[in-house]
Amino acid sequence: MKSNIYKEKNEQVQGILSELDVDSWLIWVRETSQLRDPALDLILDGDLVWQSALIYTKEGSRIAIVGNFDADGLREKKLFDRIEPYTKSIKELLIDEIREINPSKIALNYSKNDVAADGLTVGMYRSLKELLQDTDFEQRFMSAEDIVGRLRGRKTKTELDLIKKAVQITEKIYSIIRAEVRPGQTELEIYQRFHDLMRDSDVGPAWAPDHCPAVDAGPNKEFGHAGPTENKTKEGHLLHFDFGVKYFGYCSDIQRMFFFGKEKDVPDQINSAFNTVRDAIQLAADKIEPGMKGYEVDSIARDYVLDHGYEEYQHALGHQVGQHAHDGGVLLGPLWERYGDIPKGEVEVGNVFTLELYVTTEDYGQVSLEEDIVITKKGCEFLSTPQRQLICIDE
Amino acid sequence: MKSNIYKEKNEQVQGILSELDVDSWLIWVRETSQLRDPALDLILDGDLVWQSALIYTKEGSRIAIVGNFDADGLREKKLFDRIEPYTKSIKELLIDEIREINPSKIALNYSKNDVAADGLTVGMYRSLKELLQDTDFEQRFMSAEDIVGRLRGRKTKTELDLIKKAVQITEKIYSIIRAEVRPGQTELEIYQRFHDLMRDSDVGPAWAPDHCPAVDAGPNKEFGHAGPTENKTKEGHLLHFDFGVKYFGYCSDIQRMFFFGKEKDVPDQINSAFNTVRDAIQLAADKIEPGMKGYEVDSIARDYVLDHGYEEYQHALGHQVGQHAHDGGVLLGPLWERYGDIPKGEVEVGNVFTLELYVTTEDYGQVSLEEDIVITKKGCEFLSTPQRQLICIDE
Repeated sequence: MKSNIYKEKNEQVQGILSELDVDSWLIWVRETSQLRDPALDLILDGDLVWQSALIYTKEGSRIAIVGNFDADGLREKKLFDRIEPYTKSIKELLIDEIREINPSKIALNYSKNDVAADGLTVGMYRSLKELLQDTDFEQRFMSAEDIVGRLRGRKTKTELDLIKKAVQITEKIYSIIRAEVRPGQTELEIYQRFHDLMRDSDVGPAWAPDHCPAVDAGPNKEFGHAGPTENKTKEGHLLHFDFGVKYFGYCSDIQRMFFFGKEKDVPDQINSAFNTVRDAIQLAADKIEPGMKGYEVDSIARDYVLDHGYEEYQHALGHQVGQHAHDGGVLLGPLWERYGDIPKGEVEVGNVFTLELYVTTEDYGQVSLEEDIVITKKGCEFLSTPQRQLICIDE
Repeated sequence: MKSNIYKEKNEQVQGILSELDVDSWLIWVRETSQLRDPALDLILDGDLVWQSALIYTKEGSRIAIVGNFDADGLREKKLFDRIEPYTKSIKELLIDEIREINPSKIALNYSKNDVAADGLTVGMYRSLKELLQDTDFEQRFMSAEDIVGRLRGRKTKTELDLIKKAVQITEKIYSIIRAEVRPGQTELEIYQRFHDLMRDSDVGPAWAPDHCPAVDAGPNKEFGHAGPTENKTKEGHLLHFDFGVKYFGYCSDIQRMFFFGKEKDVPDQINSAFNTVRDAIQLAADKIEPGMKGYEVDSIARDYVLDHGYEEYQHALGHQVGQHAHDGGVLLGPLWERYGDIPKGEVEVGNVFTLELYVTTEDYGQVSLEEDIVITKKGCEFLSTPQRQLICIDE
């Protein structure tokens, strides 16, 4: 299954280079078992040891110049048209290949905005400039941010199947938790139960295990990166989860809200908060479509929340989901300095996003939901089954 | 156990900065779950999300400026004297802290030579320069290569205990294989058995699983990074392994040579090759001591091999072992362009190295051994039990 992905992703590259009118993309790495350019995870399993140049061209060539020990392994993967092994120094082969292609632009993996497109290290960049010092290639360098963003963002069929499966397992685990959870349990107990259920399902957490799932019982906990505590669930209180799993390398990311008590006893302020969150997400899902800018989508939900008298959520409406729960690339976020230029990118067919937001109630803490969607030609489809009403635990 | 390591490593930093007369070391990272500066693995478990500055000074201060969601988790680890959380931008806090310290040098994690000291990406470096553009701090930047090299190389007591345990498990697995291996098995069968035994011992492979262990049966396979094949073991042939395990994050790396047949039937050319390899390693172990340059140690074994009429081995005599099987830092290697300046570094007390080399026989392929040693005040101690004679499988 994984080898399908690398094949599919490699085949996407040429189209992206054409769209962006970039002649060549150079992935320049070494000893990737110690420090792995995140872009590599899209196009290659396994590691490269010596300095290695993976070159993609707009004409569709894929050339790998690698240390001789790496050549056989790479050849077996059948991802590159041509593999050029070297023993002493990569310099000559590298210069010859670039000269042959003679690209007007050479895209490299550096980016201030997007960690997923910023795999080139300072030392490696300096080595590259030194190797090429007798040429004018350095003047052709540019950021591969858009290439990596599009490549990562446009999920292939195999990638989407894995994400769907991750979502399905996440929802199965939520349904078991729903049947089991009771007032008087600690966050840590419930957290542990999630981990047991992940093990039973042969999946790992979608992000760092110490706060996946986040379990927030009652009104006094601010949502964030803090792990579960001895805090107890209680009749009349809310219980919030932020949880996702990783299935064969692909993630889900879903938030759910529980209430301890009968549906008829849910306080108005919680109902009002829940409906606002749910409807803001639905409104964004109704309106999102390919070609929209990330911040335009964010503002649909943000305005809705503000119009309903709540403070705006202090994060982005949605991030991409894939190999990482936070997968980089275009963000459905506001134009805040913190987010740089990434909310200015365009939503594309095949992108998988979260839609998530919270509002704060007066007495019961925050109400927060998160769904996963995939962008289609006409709009989007939910990958998760959206939470339409508060899950009331009343026995 | 792991938390001991981070405490121990953090305590080593000040001494190293003093020795090197470097005022400050700045680790500058973001979203480390996607791209993790290898230096972080020495001083911190867990991840940091927003732009984060970890500052160490020669006076012994440890200051962390991190996003507000990361602050609580980091505080609990008790590794830093002071944690400064920010919400909107790190700029002001970062400039204030550096101004307060007013260092003449600011060491950053970039290095052409050593991947383990090259965790700073180009995008992050540019962001840092932008944030500090109204100051003259950029003129104080320098490479933290020596800091990271020393910190990684000087194994603490806890680190050394874990490596010893990894070596012990490796030798236990080798002894089981020794009792089981027979002529007529394929490399893949034997490889699979190693993996079963690793699972039984609750350890993982020390490097990429597809070629850990390397299993090389008979004369026709060049040692390298290629995985096991359908190639079969055979009476009268050699069998070579390169194998290590990872135990709680720390590695072993040991090569062993087997022969199918009685000891008295071992061909002279194999005996001669084996003795040369064994004795070259022993000679290097006898002579190595703190303060020697890496290339000086390499040349002891290299000269020995050449003096005995063999071609020189096409790699370094030894690399450091720790969190990675190839752990970076000073290398016991020749002064070849490929290795840059790293063989010029000095061997230090507490370094763990491999001693490994091969010679090539006329008809039986290569004979190769690898042992693990730790540098002591007076010389070194073997962590592995050195292979003194060919392991003959004769039934």
